Amino acid sequence: MRVLGVDPGLTRCGIGVVDSVTGRRARLVAVGVAMSPPSSTVDARLLQIADELDTWMDAHTPDVVAVERVFAQHNVSTVMGTAQVAGLAMVAAARRGVPVAMHTPSEVKAAVTGSGRAGKEQVQKMVAQILGLSEVPRPADAADALALAICHLWRPSAILDKAERFAQTPAQRAWAAAEQSARRAKGTR
Amino acid sequence: MRVLGVDPGLTRCGIGVVDSVTGRRARLVAVGVAMSPPSSTVDARLLQIADELDTWMDAHTPDVVAVERVFAQHNVSTVMGTAQVAGLAMVAAARRGVPVAMHTPSEVKAAVTGSGRAGKEQVQKMVAQILGLSEVPRPADAADALALAICHLWRPSAILDKAERFAQTPAQRAWAAAEQSARRAKGTR
Repeated sequence: MRVLGVDPGLTRCGIGVVDSVTGRRARLVAVGVAMSPPSSTVDARLLQIADELDTWMDAHTPDVVAVERVFAQHNVSTVMGTAQVAGLAMVAAARRGVPVAMHTPSEVKAAVTGSGRAGKEQVQKMVAQILGLSEVPRPADAADALALAICHLWRPSAILDKAERFAQTPAQRAWAAAEQSARRAKGTR
Repeated sequence: MRVLGVDPGLTRCGIGVVDSVTGRRARLVAVGVAMSPPSSTVDARLLQIADELDTWMDAHTPDVVAVERVFAQHNVSTVMGTAQVAGLAMVAAARRGVPVAMHTPSEVKAAVTGSGRAGKEQVQKMVAQILGLSEVPRPADAADALALAICHLWRPSAILDKAERFAQTPAQRAWAAAEQSARRAKGTR
């Protein structure tokens, strides 16, 4: 399975493509960042990112597109652009008939490090380790997009599909707990 | 000048097209609502709205697209979808080289009624009157899209372009005040 992860952002939108391989590993296919200059108008910036997302989707034909779930509460000043770029990624996938999965930041952290509260550096180090890279992918948005893609490959339901229900790793248990806590948080809003 | 107004929303997205005519009037070209079923996935819903927006833009070839400026504070539960649809409208315009203008709800109210705090019904009645319609356009999202388009035609800077600086109507003065207050509100966030 090939997953294209999108860490949405208007100034920097991380894009990472990962293939599943047997065992607790994953293979890096491509990683990069779509950027748009803050000096441009928002509509021109969104178009630029949309075009880049289209190019990536056509070049790598993912089976699934994983997008970070954006919450309205966080970073009020940038949340609108972030939400809009997430929307563009969803439309690009839907236009190609590719299913979309949304994952919260704590789900991603838990999937990759075993803790939903892990720091950014810890997540990035684990991404490099899982993909067998000698260096952490830069910038952070690129690493975050890869973490999202890995998260989707390793989400508990994917593991369940493989009937490995009783072989949950600590990371998977933490993921499930983070997911449940995110659901609860959503319910109270 | 032809303006296509977009009142963004994921369940109902109002779209209204208006031509400028001489005097304090405007001509209705077309009005409608793009809808997507809440039972579908968000990506499929966004694609459906994006396709409708494309169809409207190609059918009516506006000179400007006016989109309601969405604020992160309002309606937290629906703001993400609203922001995403606004983003799609911006990209649809940018892809066709059509400039995008954003107007806040209070700018729209002030432009149409003379008061930035006017009620929804008052705005809708004024839209019908300005366009010479015997009935208020339904649903409300359709009327709001027309109000946005009218707001863009009548914004103070457009009037200024025509050297009517000293002939500001009460509506235009209220508009300027609402715009200034919105700028102040933005500055403090």
